[in-house]
Amino acid sequence: MTDGAEREARAQLSAAIEPGVPKVLSRVAATSGLAVVDELLSGSPELDPDGRLKRRLQVVVPREVLSLARRHGISLVVPGDRHWPARLDDLATTVRERRGGVPVALWVRGSFDPAAIARSAAVVGSRAATAYGTTVATDWSAAMAERGVTVVSGAAYGVDAAAHRGALAVDGHTIAVLAGGLDQAYPRGNTALIERIARQGALVSEAAPGSTVNRGRFLSRNRLIAALSTGTMVVEAGARSGALTTARWALALMRPVAAVPGPVTSALSLGPHQLLREQDAVLVSRPEEVVELVGDLGADAATLPVTPRRMLDDLPEMALLVYETLPARSVISVAEIMVRTGLTLPKVAGALGHLRERDLADGAGETWRRGTPRRDPA
Amino acid sequence: MTDGAEREARAQLSAAIEPGVPKVLSRVAATSGLAVVDELLSGSPELDPDGRLKRRLQVVVPREVLSLARRHGISLVVPGDRHWPARLDDLATTVRERRGGVPVALWVRGSFDPAAIARSAAVVGSRAATAYGTTVATDWSAAMAERGVTVVSGAAYGVDAAAHRGALAVDGHTIAVLAGGLDQAYPRGNTALIERIARQGALVSEAAPGSTVNRGRFLSRNRLIAALSTGTMVVEAGARSGALTTARWALALMRPVAAVPGPVTSALSLGPHQLLREQDAVLVSRPEEVVELVGDLGADAATLPVTPRRMLDDLPEMALLVYETLPARSVISVAEIMVRTGLTLPKVAGALGHLRERDLADGAGETWRRGTPRRDPA
Repeated sequence: MTDGAEREARAQLSAAIEPGVPKVLSRVAATSGLAVVDELLSGSPELDPDGRLKRRLQVVVPREVLSLARRHGISLVVPGDRHWPARLDDLATTVRERRGGVPVALWVRGSFDPAAIARSAAVVGSRAATAYGTTVATDWSAAMAERGVTVVSGAAYGVDAAAHRGALAVDGHTIAVLAGGLDQAYPRGNTALIERIARQGALVSEAAPGSTVNRGRFLSRNRLIAALSTGTMVVEAGARSGALTTARWALALMRPVAAVPGPVTSALSLGPHQLLREQDAVLVSRPEEVVELVGDLGADAATLPVTPRRMLDDLPEMALLVYETLPARSVISVAEIMVRTGLTLPKVAGALGHLRERDLADGAGETWRRGTPRRDPA
Repeated sequence: MTDGAEREARAQLSAAIEPGVPKVLSRVAATSGLAVVDELLSGSPELDPDGRLKRRLQVVVPREVLSLARRHGISLVVPGDRHWPARLDDLATTVRERRGGVPVALWVRGSFDPAAIARSAAVVGSRAATAYGTTVATDWSAAMAERGVTVVSGAAYGVDAAAHRGALAVDGHTIAVLAGGLDQAYPRGNTALIERIARQGALVSEAAPGSTVNRGRFLSRNRLIAALSTGTMVVEAGARSGALTTARWALALMRPVAAVPGPVTSALSLGPHQLLREQDAVLVSRPEEVVELVGDLGADAATLPVTPRRMLDDLPEMALLVYETLPARSVISVAEIMVRTGLTLPKVAGALGHLRERDLADGAGETWRRGTPRRDPA
């Protein structure tokens, strides 16, 4: 547990600085909240050229922030705390469009536990979703929550709200990441929903209680949605939707991104289709496919047919390398095998031929999967 | 022009054999129609174990077949003729599900010219298409035909008919590949459409006039649709649709396949989505994207910024190899570059770095395109 002075410093910082501005955040990560509060209060031409942060810090009384938090059932989580999600530390080195950095603190309301996000999916999309988008968001979030996946979203209108509602409907776990302080619900129209999420799931924000929302905070919030989740799924999104920002954060953080296609005649299909055409998003057409993407590898592997150990032991090293890239329940392309193994095309082709002879690989041309050996030959 | 005796032999064969059965077709390709007619008529345990082909050949009188063809305005095209599409020869080495082979002959009605398929797209999909599928098929086929793309399809109900109609509506060129003889329209309900295609475009079949349709002939026909077209686009298709057979033929023949996504709530989206998830299909959301896939490289290149020749001359060979794989108006993945160049990941990465330094490549991570050098440095 991080000590009281450092916690107060981080509470104070989170009330004074703009979230997601990498310069201050990376200094805090490199030193400490206390050190950066001191640096800013003594005037820092580097971090605070116009003195704005200093003036804001001077009017924030940490104990008042913490007391406001307590009155609203809001807790402070800082790095080093048991409830700090290690996953957020991935933000340390990733900067996109001048945003980035590990938040100095998380404010949480409800039952926030890093274990719950170990198997989680961000479900994001348009605020102006159609019936198609809200139906998919609700139904799939319910299906994923029933399979133990925590549904993370931003409590906005449209897809966000539908996703939370789907998870809540099956008594699943859901987390809303808000752009402002957790003492106020935003958007106001979703107040009842947000209160329900606080009771049944959790609310999270990097902004201190009392903080209002602004455009920059929404953009910074999107990076937290991506960073907190195992993977991100985009339902309906226009070409300039904030949901695409979240997806691009996920990709930058090396998290899987799933995109739900839609009719090409709808402008809200542009976002997912763009991700599928231009980025490394995976097309998903059933909630099980999202669960597979964000699922616990161990649990998935347990249901695979067990391959006689001896057969693998006898494989040349290169063939074993290729075998290990073969999925059992989907397929992989030769190109992808080349990328994962670093082997050239002739070597991959040779290894696949070797594996196929032993029924350890199944496929032809560009599409391969793990084979099921008929019997242990030994 | 192939001589009369060989033409008659091929006419006779195309009336007697089942189309798309590789054993006979590959023998014809390796020897000649005449040689195979002789071989079958003298009894060939290898090609015709049960003597069925011999009995069928004995009742076919080549001149009667040719005279029936003439009466219906149907011409015979055989390899060596000016109108023989060289593209069909790609079928020589590709076998899928026990079908394959270069047809012994093409029967054509209307204005069939290999030049017209140099820039063509097969548009295929479900016979039971919804309004979404038929709208996309019609509108996109019209848009593509307006851009000089020949629309190839099978004249079936649903997507096929919609595709032909779209092309006809803008006075574009369209080709229907039929499974039976061109003296009869199939399906009967599309007779008027098929007659219109014969007048304004062309009908094509590998079955001689007088041949009826059967399931095997539909499957063999699908390989011709794929082989005759520059690329194949799938609109709506169920999980077991024949349109997927056509798409897989196109992939096996190294032709681009475009899939139009649709709502995940529709069973007719399963086919395109499956192609996008598991095969090397490209998601398309506008007809221009299909035109780009099947377009004439020369014409496309003419609109590209001209890269100073000198910059390319200075490139190391490996970088030039990678540069040539980079598309100007779409993107390519590192994996795909590896496949196309045969280079390993470190070499591709090195070459991309080199190219990016010179503004000849633009991209990051998995997504790359051709860059636009700001100026000729010399």
